[in-house]
Amino acid sequence: MEPSFVYSLKLILFLIITTPWFLLSLHGNDNVDESSTYSTYIVHMDKSQFPNIFTTHHDWFEATIQSSKPSIHISNSNKKPSKKQLLYSYNHAMYGFSATLSSEELNSLRNSYGFISAYPDRTATMDTTHTFEFLSLDPSFGLWNASNLGEGVIVGVIDSGVWPESESFKDDGMEKKLPLKWKGRCEEGEEFNASMCNLKLIGARYFNKGLVAAKPNVTIKMNSPRDYDGHGTHTSSTVAGNYVHGANFFGYAKGVARGIAPKARVAMYKVSWEEGRQASDILAGMDQAIGDGVDVISASMGLDKVPLYEDSIAIASFAAMEKGIVVSSSAGNEGPKLGTLHNGIPWVINVAASSIDRTFGSLVLGNGETIIGWTLFAADAIVQDLQLVYHDTLSACNSSHMLREVVAATSDGIIVCKASDSISVFDQINLVTMTNVKGAVFISDDSEVTEWGHLYSPSIVITSKDAKSVINYAQSNKNPKASINFQQTFLGIKPSPVAARYSSRGPSPSFPWILKPDIMAPGTRVLAAYIPHKTTATIGTNVFLSSHYNIQSGTSMACPHVSAVAALLKAARPEWGVAAIKSAIMTTANFLDNTENLIRDNANPNEFASPLAIGAGEIDPNRALDPGLVYDATPQDYVNLLCGLNYSYDQILTITRSRSYDCSNPSLDLNYPSFIVFYSKESESVVHKFRRTVTNVGEGGATYRVKVREPMGSMVTVLPNTLVFKDKNEKQSYEVHIMYMKKDNESNNNVSFGDIVWVEDGGKHTVRSPIVVAPNGIV
Amino acid sequence: MEPSFVYSLKLILFLIITTPWFLLSLHGNDNVDESSTYSTYIVHMDKSQFPNIFTTHHDWFEATIQSSKPSIHISNSNKKPSKKQLLYSYNHAMYGFSATLSSEELNSLRNSYGFISAYPDRTATMDTTHTFEFLSLDPSFGLWNASNLGEGVIVGVIDSGVWPESESFKDDGMEKKLPLKWKGRCEEGEEFNASMCNLKLIGARYFNKGLVAAKPNVTIKMNSPRDYDGHGTHTSSTVAGNYVHGANFFGYAKGVARGIAPKARVAMYKVSWEEGRQASDILAGMDQAIGDGVDVISASMGLDKVPLYEDSIAIASFAAMEKGIVVSSSAGNEGPKLGTLHNGIPWVINVAASSIDRTFGSLVLGNGETIIGWTLFAADAIVQDLQLVYHDTLSACNSSHMLREVVAATSDGIIVCKASDSISVFDQINLVTMTNVKGAVFISDDSEVTEWGHLYSPSIVITSKDAKSVINYAQSNKNPKASINFQQTFLGIKPSPVAARYSSRGPSPSFPWILKPDIMAPGTRVLAAYIPHKTTATIGTNVFLSSHYNIQSGTSMACPHVSAVAALLKAARPEWGVAAIKSAIMTTANFLDNTENLIRDNANPNEFASPLAIGAGEIDPNRALDPGLVYDATPQDYVNLLCGLNYSYDQILTITRSRSYDCSNPSLDLNYPSFIVFYSKESESVVHKFRRTVTNVGEGGATYRVKVREPMGSMVTVLPNTLVFKDKNEKQSYEVHIMYMKKDNESNNNVSFGDIVWVEDGGKHTVRSPIVVAPNGIV
Repeated sequence: MEPSFVYSLKLILFLIITTPWFLLSLHGNDNVDESSTYSTYIVHMDKSQFPNIFTTHHDWFEATIQSSKPSIHISNSNKKPSKKQLLYSYNHAMYGFSATLSSEELNSLRNSYGFISAYPDRTATMDTTHTFEFLSLDPSFGLWNASNLGEGVIVGVIDSGVWPESESFKDDGMEKKLPLKWKGRCEEGEEFNASMCNLKLIGARYFNKGLVAAKPNVTIKMNSPRDYDGHGTHTSSTVAGNYVHGANFFGYAKGVARGIAPKARVAMYKVSWEEGRQASDILAGMDQAIGDGVDVISASMGLDKVPLYEDSIAIASFAAMEKGIVVSSSAGNEGPKLGTLHNGIPWVINVAASSIDRTFGSLVLGNGETIIGWTLFAADAIVQDLQLVYHDTLSACNSSHMLREVVAATSDGIIVCKASDSISVFDQINLVTMTNVKGAVFISDDSEVTEWGHLYSPSIVITSKDAKSVINYAQSNKNPKASINFQQTFLGIKPSPVAARYSSRGPSPSFPWILKPDIMAPGTRVLAAYIPHKTTATIGTNVFLSSHYNIQSGTSMACPHVSAVAALLKAARPEWGVAAIKSAIMTTANFLDNTENLIRDNANPNEFASPLAIGAGEIDPNRALDPGLVYDATPQDYVNLLCGLNYSYDQILTITRSRSYDCSNPSLDLNYPSFIVFYSKESESVVHKFRRTVTNVGEGGATYRVKVREPMGSMVTVLPNTLVFKDKNEKQSYEVHIMYMKKDNESNNNVSFGDIVWVEDGGKHTVRSPIVVAPNGIV
Repeated sequence: MEPSFVYSLKLILFLIITTPWFLLSLHGNDNVDESSTYSTYIVHMDKSQFPNIFTTHHDWFEATIQSSKPSIHISNSNKKPSKKQLLYSYNHAMYGFSATLSSEELNSLRNSYGFISAYPDRTATMDTTHTFEFLSLDPSFGLWNASNLGEGVIVGVIDSGVWPESESFKDDGMEKKLPLKWKGRCEEGEEFNASMCNLKLIGARYFNKGLVAAKPNVTIKMNSPRDYDGHGTHTSSTVAGNYVHGANFFGYAKGVARGIAPKARVAMYKVSWEEGRQASDILAGMDQAIGDGVDVISASMGLDKVPLYEDSIAIASFAAMEKGIVVSSSAGNEGPKLGTLHNGIPWVINVAASSIDRTFGSLVLGNGETIIGWTLFAADAIVQDLQLVYHDTLSACNSSHMLREVVAATSDGIIVCKASDSISVFDQINLVTMTNVKGAVFISDDSEVTEWGHLYSPSIVITSKDAKSVINYAQSNKNPKASINFQQTFLGIKPSPVAARYSSRGPSPSFPWILKPDIMAPGTRVLAAYIPHKTTATIGTNVFLSSHYNIQSGTSMACPHVSAVAALLKAARPEWGVAAIKSAIMTTANFLDNTENLIRDNANPNEFASPLAIGAGEIDPNRALDPGLVYDATPQDYVNLLCGLNYSYDQILTITRSRSYDCSNPSLDLNYPSFIVFYSKESESVVHKFRRTVTNVGEGGATYRVKVREPMGSMVTVLPNTLVFKDKNEKQSYEVHIMYMKKDNESNNNVSFGDIVWVEDGGKHTVRSPIVVAPNGIV
């Protein structure tokens, strides 16, 4: 018999078995009511029920879709062929497929053999290079030394593609031989051919079937792995860009750019498009990355307001975690409101963004005083020894008419603008740009402008604190003068790091019982590679400029720093699993800034940053290499967590994909290196009990004693308070009791925080876990 | 006896001898009427009359000034000390001094012993790097090869100083040992110390006593050899800048910059100041250069409307010529009017400016057509696929209001502006700049804009010829689009060279009987080193930018090209004198452009350029190495010329400094490689006879036959028409008769031109001399 005939026979047999309405489906199942709305759905199937009449999963899924049919009350008139189609088969990140279906077809599909769950496709939101120095990475010691700069590790970047011609992706000095496990490839497409990959950029693929299904009339602009946005080139070069001399952004941040894991390899999975980004495509990208054999997945994007069992990244990263692949993702840029974070996934590293110790530009007064401010104005404009104009009325900078008069009266002086309640610094910047003032000084404490802002005319932003001497000088001198210096880069700025205002805050709406974010990393004003034809700076209102390197801000920029550190740890500590790597990163994080005080929060500079903003603190790669103790977890531990929720079995199976996990031991208390306690605003007190087990990964025996900083208004008890390890890899457990007691005069929304630190006798290792006590209902 | 007493005694004796009013001068000669006006005068003295009672020339000059006294009718009241002072003693370029004197003191001085002449100090006007390629210079053959890139030669640059830190003045690869004859030094001053000279920049001095005397209240801004203007850094790096990789002007003209004589050494004589430039300082600079032992003097400046005997550059360069030092100077930038040229000095090479075969930027239409235009907009602005707006009314671009409406209506399109009689392209450029249009195309044939102009907004200039297809495309398409590409450099532009519009034209007002300019060299849009803090480009109306390399235009930029070629010839042909070098440069010049037609004139693109604009044509360095024949001249030949004028003996002596020259053979017919004939507008015809002697500098014997291109309306006879040389260095003479006959229908101001070319049998050498026939009274 012809094989195809055998297949057809098997298919009919299968349909007879699984489809009660088979006979009916012989008529009209390819026709559909014109009024039907088509959507894309992600469908999870039970792999254990794979019918062996099919040769491939794909065949099964095709057959399943073909057999799905609209409800039976279709009139025979106005029949049109069904538009249903299979987009992707998934096999690594999840088991199942995505398909475009009518709601009737979906309903029919729910009754299919092997069906677990289905949910609509979603759109995702997207959330260097002094940072390696800021993170104290040095080839002669610590993590760079131990990991040989990440050699042998592959990082899969889920993003908007890559600009393969960027200097950052040259493969000079890369090991010639690719890892044997690597199965990826360099997919051809628009302006992209297979020869564009090399020993640095070892793979590049693209996924947009979900997007095309969501927007059937869309024309994909760059239908290939080539980056048309810049985001993916930026993040992937931050992870593992090669050494590039003289990289800079219009003269700023000039130096030798490099990724945080400069010898790691990059594989790009393009899932983000100018036209949109769909969960089904993200899932396809991550599915492929897992199948290709990456070691780390970096995903600087997230799906907002979605339960774990419908979150592509959560689902795919569970499969990755099972395989020992670390997934690092961004918290989002919806801060500073609490509960805005996405990717709050127990088995993923969730990354918040911080500032670094760098700023640009200075103001020099005629009396010689130099004030370091902030400017990234895109040219080395000459603003030297001009009259400095400060005037109570004019300095409101709220009237272009008045500004023009200043220009005329001072023969092009430098105007000082003071933001106020009645006009924002952003409006002032725009007004001044349109006035063609020769120089401007903006007084503002709005961290949004220094974190995200752009300046379009020769100008600089200074703080109100620094402004005092400027105003004083301008007012007390008959002929005050000043200069603004551009293309200057200053390091060692204090305090730093500071939590970025924009960085999304925990708790995680999808899983609040584990403290998120996990860790903070540099995300503000990060220099990395970019696409060369996109506007990255504007002069005036009409001059648009591009650059090969761009300074960008966001948790998207923070995430690849952590992905890279995970890659370095993979290289240096191949025996560590996903949970151990995450634990090492978290328990060794810096909770102090470079003034030796608690890290501050740009959203509220007068307060210290809560772990809901910064997680365990700023990543400290060299310390992560040698954490002393780690909090480990197995896939079953995460399943226990899911079992502790009121998820249905199919919802759990949607994530776990395997019936071999069991729910006999449900628990919301994961063995995690951080603690979060919620209190009800009504109840007077709450006691929460945690149990933790730590594994000694230091060399030989060690004794650890606990030190606790209690959150304000809480009592914390740790039992035992001493842990004695005789050998490496020995485990010890302890219990934590956190009792929160409401005070009468206290407002109802207090978030307090503290920590539990295990300090080794002799002081070599300290293992710190943050504690947050927060009211219910903030997510 | 004390030496000082002896000196005093001698001085008194001298004063008794030379000063009839000696006794009177004992009273009040240091007092002067307050109303006296002081000026600086340059005073020429007779060296042969040096009184040996003085130890130095300086002593004599001091004594002469001291003895000069105001007229005797001074009242005794209101006496004030005389402000008279000696500025410089000159000994090489001329013999004498400059001094600040009252007119009475000057009158008294005229009667001093040894006095020849005196005239007021004057102010001077100032008039790379693909050009070496354009001039076909290549290390593997021709002049660069024969001269070893100018090794061993010193060029003294008379200019505004030098920026010693410029990469162009690094001394990598320079011969370690300085020539023995070198006596110069590195003078210290403001922001300049002796260690700033090196093996490339071997000397640096500065001269401003004349300036300070002219403007007693002036504060000199950079009182040292340091360049505060950029001009001197540009010209000296054009002469002999070292190799600099990646030199560019805001991304334009990017490449390896180098001087035309890359291994020659530079000595800077700063005489040009932000505060002004005085003939007495120029004279001091040239005097010093001659004394220091330079081989070539490059002076990109000149004194306007001044007779030879009061022209510092003419005077100093006569002394230089006697010593075999070639002086090359610029024609000036007062073209295209005839007779505007300065430095029209028989013993100097006078240099006109040409364009080169390079332009920048392109316009790409939506239909794919690419138009190469001109832009040096100082940023790589993104102007891509925007709507192209051409509209009969709007494209006048004479209303900022209308332009703003275009911007609004087209959501930032590219406006096409067409210059007309009612609005110049310069006004349109300014209007468009203020309107903040995203892109503009200026249609203009005004060579001033492409030669000198600047663009302040993202825009490009195209010719009216190229505009036709642009307008046609814009009008015939519903949705016309265009892109402007910046930071592009195009070579091979035709036709080139073209005479620059601005280049000053002959005849020389100070000496019309020798055709000037002599030669043309690249002067338009030349890239060379610059000072790093001066505005070289502007974006919009308020963003001022500087650059380490600058693209400048002027005969000031052409002159150093010729100075460098003279330096190369000095190295390759050490046996040649000043006249031979000049002759070799002139008779081998290119009179055809790169379309093999006669060189055109930007002032009138429909006509061929006259030798009054271009001299013998565009310099051709490799051919100058091997001219076949040269027209030589001795210092006495030049004196004969001066004797042919109705100059007084003292005026001649002012230039020649020596009574050993005689005037027994006066003649306006110098043995010069060019011819100029003036006709009276009244007379019907004129016959002019010239006699020339050529020296065979080719190897061995040769036969030359004459070819004549007669100027329109003239008959030219050459006798003999064949010259046979048996040996090298043999001389042969010939006569030229040029008869001009006025035609009835002819206008009275016709300048016609032709040439006499001696062609060697076998064709190896051609020796060309331009002829100009011009009406009297155009200077």
